[in-house]
Amino acid sequence: MKHGTAKTEAFLRLCAVLVLVLTACLVGFDSQTKYVIFVYRKATFRDLKALLVLVYVVSVAAGYNLLQLGKCSKSAWYKENLKGSNLYVAWLCFLLDQVAVYVTFGANSAALEASVLAIKGAQDFQWMKLCNKYTRFCFQIGGALACGYVACILMAWISLISAFNLFRLYSLKQFLLLKTRG
Amino acid sequence: MKHGTAKTEAFLRLCAVLVLVLTACLVGFDSQTKYVIFVYRKATFRDLKALLVLVYVVSVAAGYNLLQLGKCSKSAWYKENLKGSNLYVAWLCFLLDQVAVYVTFGANSAALEASVLAIKGAQDFQWMKLCNKYTRFCFQIGGALACGYVACILMAWISLISAFNLFRLYSLKQFLLLKTRG
Repeated sequence: MKHGTAKTEAFLRLCAVLVLVLTACLVGFDSQTKYVIFVYRKATFRDLKALLVLVYVVSVAAGYNLLQLGKCSKSAWYKENLKGSNLYVAWLCFLLDQVAVYVTFGANSAALEASVLAIKGAQDFQWMKLCNKYTRFCFQIGGALACGYVACILMAWISLISAFNLFRLYSLKQFLLLKTRG
Repeated sequence: MKHGTAKTEAFLRLCAVLVLVLTACLVGFDSQTKYVIFVYRKATFRDLKALLVLVYVVSVAAGYNLLQLGKCSKSAWYKENLKGSNLYVAWLCFLLDQVAVYVTFGANSAALEASVLAIKGAQDFQWMKLCNKYTRFCFQIGGALACGYVACILMAWISLISAFNLFRLYSLKQFLLLKTRG
């Protein structure tokens, strides 16, 4: 049954890597050229810092999950003897999983806020709308953000599995004591 | 020792409530009036949707943690018999804790992105800087966002404790089987 969890984790990580790469590509290769006020202007993700940060964060998260996938496939992880140094590695992986999901989620939310500002503008600040000009560009960014949130859900699920695998090693009766049987 | 975890959780929740209320107050009562281009303009958190959303989210999160604090203080929670319907409640609390921390973190990140845009502007988009005019307003928002992130860290810690208390109920050998001893 333990092997079952490892397989689920590997499958989820593979999905997460694919969706993260898809997000990075959708944002990174998005560009639209328009003739605006006497000049051709090309809109790319570099115009908005939030999108640039999102591409970097999503790429790093994809790389991290790919590394973890390599670890899962060896499956040396899920052997019975998780005490000693292996336990520290399990804690490290759990914490890294948590950091990965929070950072990706934060970058995604920041990009979403920037995109909402680009769609709606902010009249009080005289920040004008941009998506009425660059419609196709904005739709592609919207799709990328949706993919990003799917990736976040997958990674949150993975971190839940890590937490489950780590914490059930501990005893019920005493705090932070490893259990010896079932 | 189990009681110790309950006390830690209650203390963390109390801190989280206080910091969340502080965040909501810092954002909600922030305003600055300036004479800009022939008119007096008052900057409040209502000018920026992200800040409005942050105030609502942070208030709801504070209310949620206050409710959970009431539950902790009764401490009926941490009794030995966590099986049956209590187990479902423990799962529900764990999931709600997770949702609370993610939503708060997302709203905070969105508000941070909006604030960075207000500080730096976006030249490509002709979005002008605003914080050179409303300096005091922007500093107060900055403090509020720092408080918001502290609250997120506290809530992430709380959700880790919930996960620990829930998952160590489960058996090591079989997946999703409750354990009967230590």
